[in-house]
Formats: sequence, C-alpha cells, structure tokens
Amino acid sequence: MNRAKIRVFVEDDLGAGETLNLAGHAHYLTNVMRLQVDAEIAVFNGRDGEWTARLVEAGKRRVTAQCLTRTLDQSTPPDLWLLFAPIKKARTDFIVEKATEMGARRIQPVFTRFTNSERVRPEKLHAHCIEAAEQCGGVFVPELSDPAPLDKVLDYWPQDRKLMFCDEMSARMDTLDALRSTGGDKWAILIGPEGGFAADEAARLRDMAQTVPVNLGPRILRADTAAVAAMALWQVALGDWRA
Amino acid sequence: MNRAKIRVFVEDDLGAGETLNLAGHAHYLTNVMRLQVDAEIAVFNGRDGEWTARLVEAGKRRVTAQCLTRTLDQSTPPDLWLLFAPIKKARTDFIVEKATEMGARRIQPVFTRFTNSERVRPEKLHAHCIEAAEQCGGVFVPELSDPAPLDKVLDYWPQDRKLMFCDEMSARMDTLDALRSTGGDKWAILIGPEGGFAADEAARLRDMAQTVPVNLGPRILRADTAAVAAMALWQVALGDWRA
Repeated sequence: MNRAKIRVFVEDDLGAGETLNLAGHAHYLTNVMRLQVDAEIAVFNGRDGEWTARLVEAGKRRVTAQCLTRTLDQSTPPDLWLLFAPIKKARTDFIVEKATEMGARRIQPVFTRFTNSERVRPEKLHAHCIEAAEQCGGVFVPELSDPAPLDKVLDYWPQDRKLMFCDEMSARMDTLDALRSTGGDKWAILIGPEGGFAADEAARLRDMAQTVPVNLGPRILRADTAAVAAMALWQVALGDWRA
Repeated sequence: MNRAKIRVFVEDDLGAGETLNLAGHAHYLTNVMRLQVDAEIAVFNGRDGEWTARLVEAGKRRVTAQCLTRTLDQSTPPDLWLLFAPIKKARTDFIVEKATEMGARRIQPVFTRFTNSERVRPEKLHAHCIEAAEQCGGVFVPELSDPAPLDKVLDYWPQDRKLMFCDEMSARMDTLDALRSTGGDKWAILIGPEGGFAADEAARLRDMAQTVPVNLGPRILRADTAAVAAMALWQVALGDWRA
C-alpha cells in the first residue's frame, strides 16, 4: 500500500542531489516514525512534484536528506477557488482539508453578515492544507487568502471569474447544465454561513454578471457538506473529474 | 431565520392534539434552551412530517407537549444506501452525519480486509443520524444496519440493487454517464477503507453484475470526503437533485 508511505511537505526546491533540511519534521520523523539514517521518504513542495529522499542525518533536532528521484510529476488542480464563511473551528479545519482533497487552487475565507466569526488563524489553516496534501498523496497545496469581508471581496471580483453561488433560494435545479453552459476555466464556489446570507448580500450576488446560482438539492446542508458536494459537481462538470 | 428553531426527534406518532412525551429531551429543552410552558418547538418522527408542538409541562424531568399543526410533509429520500468501512471515530460519526444530510435511505457499515475496525456502536451512530436530521431541518432519519463483514453483505446482495463502487483503480471517468445509462431506482454506494480494498475484494466487486465502478477524480480522497462527493454525483445523476 503505497499510500502508507511517509510523505512530508518541504519549502526547499527539489531536484536530484539537493540536500533538504527537514529540521521542522524532526519530531515526526525520528521520534514518532523512528526513522534512521538511510530511511527513504517522499517529499513534495507544491511546485516540483513528489520525490524520494534518503535521510543523511536523523538526529533529535537535525534531520537532513538527499533528494533522489522524482516519483510524481507536479500537477495543479483546475483554476477553482473556494470561498466560505468561517464556522466553528473543527468544521473550518474540515472545509480547508476537504478543499485540498477536492482540488481547490485557492481558498478564501469570507466574513458575511451572519458569519459567527470566531477568530480565523490563517497560519493554522495553511498547516491543515499541507497536512491534507501530505496524507492524501497530493503534490499541490492550495493558496490560502487572508480572511476578508465578503463585500470587499466582491468589490474587487475579477470580471472573468464565474461564481457558483450555492443559493438555497434558487429554484434552478439543473446545476450541471448551468455550469456546463456557462463554461470558462476560471471559477469560484461560494458557500454561505450556517445562518444563510442576508437578503441584501444574496441580492448583490444574484445581480452580479459573473454569478451562476445553483441549488444543492431539497435538504439543507451544513456548510462543510455543501463545500464538498459543490466541488464534486463542479469537478465533474468543468474540472478534472470530466471524462 | 427559520433554521434556528428548536427541533427535536420523537418516537411518538404525530397528529393534531396528540400529547408528546419529551422526557428524553428534558435537559436540552428546559436547561439548555430554557424553554417554559407554552413555548413552541418543531418535532418530527421520521414518518409523519414536521409538526409544531406547544409545551404543556416543562419540568426538570417531565416535559410534555401538545402537537398542533403540520409544518412540513413527510418526505423520504431516494432509495440509496451508503456502505462504508468504519474508520476512526470522529470520521465515522462524520460519514453518518453527512449521509443523513445528503439523503441516504439506509446506512450499512461494512468490515473489509483493511478496515481498521475500531468498535462501532450502532446506537451512537443512530443518535448521530437523528442529530443531523434535527439540525438540518430534515424529516427523515436513515435506517442504520448492523455492521457486517463486506463478504456477507455481498453474499446476500439484492439482484435488483445497483452498486456504485468507488474504485480508485477504475480508469472510467464518465461517472455521470455510467450512472445515468445504468439507471434504475435502487442503488447503493460503496466507499472503501483508508487502505483501499484487498485485491480479491476488488475483483469480487468488479465481477458482480450489479456493480458500476466509478472514479472520483485524480486525487486520493479520504473516505469521508469520498462519501459526500459520491452521494452528490449520484443525487444529481439519478436522485432528487435532478432538474
């Protein structure tokens, strides 16, 4: 089972013969996994694919490895952003993890009128993205944008980026057709907060030329469920899950 | 925001004038939510839709209510089962919650060769289904089958129930076409354990006439992510998310 192999994210450039400083992973590699010199691990940096590396030093603090051969080419998911309103911590972590697995290029937390905005710590969310990529064999880590008010994000919304607006009030059930007929390769998905959008927020969203309102079925979904479901529909309609 | 209303699941039959025994919810209703006599709540039992009920007694132990008017008709999701291999507790709870939101009729935990079978407590999972339905405004609670070995479940697999087999090894990317062209209204989705299926398990699954292997994209998904994504694709292709 290849998937059980030890994979770590590094900042360094990867290439045959490069020496990697793994001090940041020392506890995990030498205490938790009990690796010793000559052990082989997988490394990725989000840019250069996945490589095999062999430990050269395996101390309590100092761990270095030599980069050997590339095992996976770099791949980048489609140009899809996920915008979501932060919810309570465990579920926010979960959304970020799921966005990584489902192939978001960028994640943007947005504060809406009804966001129960517990403090969002971007560096923690970034760590969750990395962990998700490490565990799921990914070679790409989504970019995490600083949390911002929804209104500000919409003020600067790119003309050429479509916005899949998951709108409980939308009567439109032909989600796949709506996505496919709109087409284009720059998209974002917007998932609302648990309390829904304020009326004027929803009205502004519906008025934007870039918006494609979609409906996610007859049952009310939590934000984290909606994020995964919406990304699955987008990937199969327009992304890299297409036939 | 209607969704903030207090909703509880009851076993009793619901109908105008019925008296409901809410002793099982006494702590939540009177201590946590501090409701008093005459407060109105929403109740559902999975069979009779959602009703408004007014508290008649609101004691520490004894809480009763009178059922007033129906606020939602009963609705039942499509005939979709979710089969999944239990994983660590938090994620198993999560799968059960998500299956409820996404509209599974029945949930069947299965033990596979590579299942890290921590103990599964069906009564706890059932409580999670109820909680998910309470919080998401649902009026249906999925049936929870006793955990069973996958082999046994397949030994008695119904002739007329299709099996959407989420198979990482499947090269077939046309998931929606595969589902639609198979058609039918009795289905199940099978999500494998973190370590994947054993070779003979996968071979047996692929050999079954009822099996429709599908691929969930180029990234490896955790079991809980795969469950939500697969249900979204099924609902939009064959279930009640169709146009």
